[in-house]
Amino acid sequence: MGTASEALLAYLHEHIPLSARMGTRIVEAGPRGVLLEAPLEPNLNHRETAFGGSVAALAILAGWTLVHLRLRAEGIEARTVIQRGDVSFHEPVEEAFRAHALPPDPSTWSRFLRTLARRRKGRVTVRVDVLCGGRAVGGMNAAYVSLTISPEP
Amino acid sequence: MGTASEALLAYLHEHIPLSARMGTRIVEAGPRGVLLEAPLEPNLNHRETAFGGSVAALAILAGWTLVHLRLRAEGIEARTVIQRGDVSFHEPVEEAFRAHALPPDPSTWSRFLRTLARRRKGRVTVRVDVLCGGRAVGGMNAAYVSLTISPEP
Repeated sequence: MGTASEALLAYLHEHIPLSARMGTRIVEAGPRGVLLEAPLEPNLNHRETAFGGSVAALAILAGWTLVHLRLRAEGIEARTVIQRGDVSFHEPVEEAFRAHALPPDPSTWSRFLRTLARRRKGRVTVRVDVLCGGRAVGGMNAAYVSLTISPEP
Repeated sequence: MGTASEALLAYLHEHIPLSARMGTRIVEAGPRGVLLEAPLEPNLNHRETAFGGSVAALAILAGWTLVHLRLRAEGIEARTVIQRGDVSFHEPVEEAFRAHALPPDPSTWSRFLRTLARRRKGRVTVRVDVLCGGRAVGGMNAAYVSLTISPEP
């Protein structure tokens, strides 16, 4: 893991303490994609598989991190929060699991940036695949809203 | 909190350790509704409001608990897991928050029980309201799948 990822992980663990309690680690994180991983043990459910709430939380975090990193790469200071998400679980998660947030297609991203520039507020949907043992076991489409931060007067 | 709620809370904290790490407590839990609460501190995000992943997790847990308790009240032994969920966040969550799982309407519930009896597998959708400071700040529609457990031969 590079220094940028270490700093990002420290940021996540400090500001979103549940991410540390879930044992979240960064496999890869950049404007072209964010891949987070969590071990099974702190995220177990009553069936000895991963709790759906943990899986949803990792997916929401991966999508948020992608939007955050992409905006930073554009030099845009903004606050981003989730607005809605549609999560699905196809198979039980029986070992460490990953959430892979994929970049929106270029036209969607450009439209988001244009709206953000014009209205200081924009909304973008991110696809997050949930993987376990190398297979897709679920996923989420998550919509985030960003507000640009005005410089202090 | 009555003895039944204490036993349920112990079950959740033991089998779904993230529920303990989130500080989940039971306000009310029975076949007619499940109301869970979590404090803000362990569930904070980078904005000093509740992390969307924590809110989604509490909603998933409330819905699951409702299905579990309603099946138990019918004398049905089943394993229940979440299949999908659609979560929305209308307002920032600035203090302790609650997830209130509401019973499905009687015809939906009867259909679920009939399918479960016939196919040993059924699916039911539960509405969960997310509340903060007495106001609705978000919600989730979550679909759960139950499989009846056969007695050991």
